Amino acid sequence: MKIAIVIFDKFTDVDLWLMWDLLNRVQIKNWSVKILGEKDSHISATNIEVKTHAGLEEANDADAVLFVSGQGTRAKMIDKDWLSRFHLNPEKQLIGSICSGALILAALGLLEGKTATTYPTSKAALESFGVEIVEKPFVENGNVATAGGCLAQQYLVGWVIENLANQEWKDLILKSIQPVGEGLFFADAENLTRLYAPIIKVQTV
Amino acid sequence: MKIAIVIFDKFTDVDLWLMWDLLNRVQIKNWSVKILGEKDSHISATNIEVKTHAGLEEANDADAVLFVSGQGTRAKMIDKDWLSRFHLNPEKQLIGSICSGALILAALGLLEGKTATTYPTSKAALESFGVEIVEKPFVENGNVATAGGCLAQQYLVGWVIENLANQEWKDLILKSIQPVGEGLFFADAENLTRLYAPIIKVQTV
Repeated sequence: MKIAIVIFDKFTDVDLWLMWDLLNRVQIKNWSVKILGEKDSHISATNIEVKTHAGLEEANDADAVLFVSGQGTRAKMIDKDWLSRFHLNPEKQLIGSICSGALILAALGLLEGKTATTYPTSKAALESFGVEIVEKPFVENGNVATAGGCLAQQYLVGWVIENLANQEWKDLILKSIQPVGEGLFFADAENLTRLYAPIIKVQTV
Repeated sequence: MKIAIVIFDKFTDVDLWLMWDLLNRVQIKNWSVKILGEKDSHISATNIEVKTHAGLEEANDADAVLFVSGQGTRAKMIDKDWLSRFHLNPEKQLIGSICSGALILAALGLLEGKTATTYPTSKAALESFGVEIVEKPFVENGNVATAGGCLAQQYLVGWVIENLANQEWKDLILKSIQPVGEGLFFADAENLTRLYAPIIKVQTV
């Protein structure tokens, strides 16, 4: 299974790293997670440099494609050259976004006639694409899903893991980041060790 | 206010980036957040390279020092050279950890006679330091605090922001990452814009 996370300059840091970290906890064979971008590295909203693993075109044959958020979405949603490099297929691929990443899904025509959610500060821009917006953390329409609010990445990642791995991995991985005493318990220790096998998958693909 | 986040090789990605992102949402003058390490860059548990902003010694005069987690804590908690570079003062500084970062607080003698929390898979190692462990997401003892479970970074960061900025910033910032419809609402949009001022503080310090 190949999962692509698409970034660009001025992305919201935690909207990349929470999903990245969670998706990397799936320890099954041939599970690959890569960060894609148009450059060898991109600069986050807080000026952090992140190297990409591959170019944008790898999104086109990934099993799941996830778009991050951030101020940079405003430039990308009108960047025709950048948008034209994607040939995504919602019949065959899971396609999702966190927060203002929904603006890119809309610009790619993936939200036509669909409901969606986004970050509060991106609602007006998303409405300008004619998308019907609902005040929910996660909106799934077949193979296209949007999530709003950074921590709603849990719903988005859970959806990907349940569909491409299974519900057992989803439940264990989402449990693994809960606060101790509030969803995660010391008695879970043995089960958690399944998530931290010494495999660095990115290097092996 | 100077906030230092200490990293090392094999750190847990989200245990750096959630607190980093949240702490960078405070938009007040002279608020500085830096990532410290013994090298110019460190490699995370998922093989991501992160450049550091400064060396470990800057922790010694920071207003708050936060230790991240990850498999790398096992090497650092017995690395006497590395530990000897810290001269932290819990009378003057806020000192905290997420998950297995508590092992470093213990190794520095900061948890002697105190209760603490940690990640389930680090409980036995922390007990070996003689620390009394409680099954809670956040344990505060004066200026020393431990948090367990990645999302408990919200408690840890909230504690730092409330003490070094104020409760209004804490409440707004913690709200800003909640899922839409579950703590964050479209009506919050205008208030949220206060968090995304075009200031890159790391560059200005």
